[in-house]
Amino acid sequence: MAQEIERKFLVTGDGWRSQGQRVLYRQGYIPTTDARTVRIRVVGQQGYLTLKGPTAGVTRSEFEYPIPHDEAMAILDILCDPPLIEKWRTRIELEDLIWQIDEFLGANQGLILAEVELTQENQTLQYPSWLGPEVSHDPRYFNVNLARHPYTAWSDAAT
Amino acid sequence: MAQEIERKFLVTGDGWRSQGQRVLYRQGYIPTTDARTVRIRVVGQQGYLTLKGPTAGVTRSEFEYPIPHDEAMAILDILCDPPLIEKWRTRIELEDLIWQIDEFLGANQGLILAEVELTQENQTLQYPSWLGPEVSHDPRYFNVNLARHPYTAWSDAAT
Repeated sequence: MAQEIERKFLVTGDGWRSQGQRVLYRQGYIPTTDARTVRIRVVGQQGYLTLKGPTAGVTRSEFEYPIPHDEAMAILDILCDPPLIEKWRTRIELEDLIWQIDEFLGANQGLILAEVELTQENQTLQYPSWLGPEVSHDPRYFNVNLARHPYTAWSDAAT
Repeated sequence: MAQEIERKFLVTGDGWRSQGQRVLYRQGYIPTTDARTVRIRVVGQQGYLTLKGPTAGVTRSEFEYPIPHDEAMAILDILCDPPLIEKWRTRIELEDLIWQIDEFLGANQGLILAEVELTQENQTLQYPSWLGPEVSHDPRYFNVNLARHPYTAWSDAAT
């Protein structure tokens, strides 16, 4: 089991684009009755099956297992509700921290999020110039919710 | 992916008891919003994570992955709602078919079910003498439902 401590931000600038290589992520969720998450993800030719517990602050329990690519694709097709989450992920290292910038496609086109994984909840953070407002505690930006209520379906009033 | 074709029966006799060795199963479920199932199971020192699609007749899609014992125990503890399903499983081979007899413990004490896996939906079946009525299509006997509404909580009127 891993303990994830993550902070999440909107991305408002372009300064990150030249700094890393992007990889396509495709993922879906088996609908659960509450804050527990069952995620199926395909990154390149590798599948992953991930279970996550409820979020407590910015911390979650996470259990992740690699699975065959073809089975992950079949699970996405048979067991997950559309729309799937599709995004380009770019990893950037800045001041010993790894930033993951997700540029969403399809039903979430237009949304760009940056996540940083921390070792402590109260760790201080250097804000890159391209970083926008923090959305760590806004459940609309959880990927599981972006699958249910995608960004392009949000009204201007709701954002 | 496997396609499961199973028939399930109550067990009313004892003739099976001398014919196989029993193994303890411990399992729980991550609550899902519909007929899809996410099961965590511990058999001896091995954990398993299993995803199943909706039942169509007596057929289901199934994806199963071995996971470390300690992680399976942690997932049962952190992500599954009590009560867990605990049962002794006895495997018996009869006329080229494998029967699995589950003798439930804890909240489902008193219930004994037999399952047989078939290769075709319309396959003919020799009924062993200890077999009771078929319950393949009764959702109360699905293990996922026995975790939600255990056998000892059923009223006589409801059975």
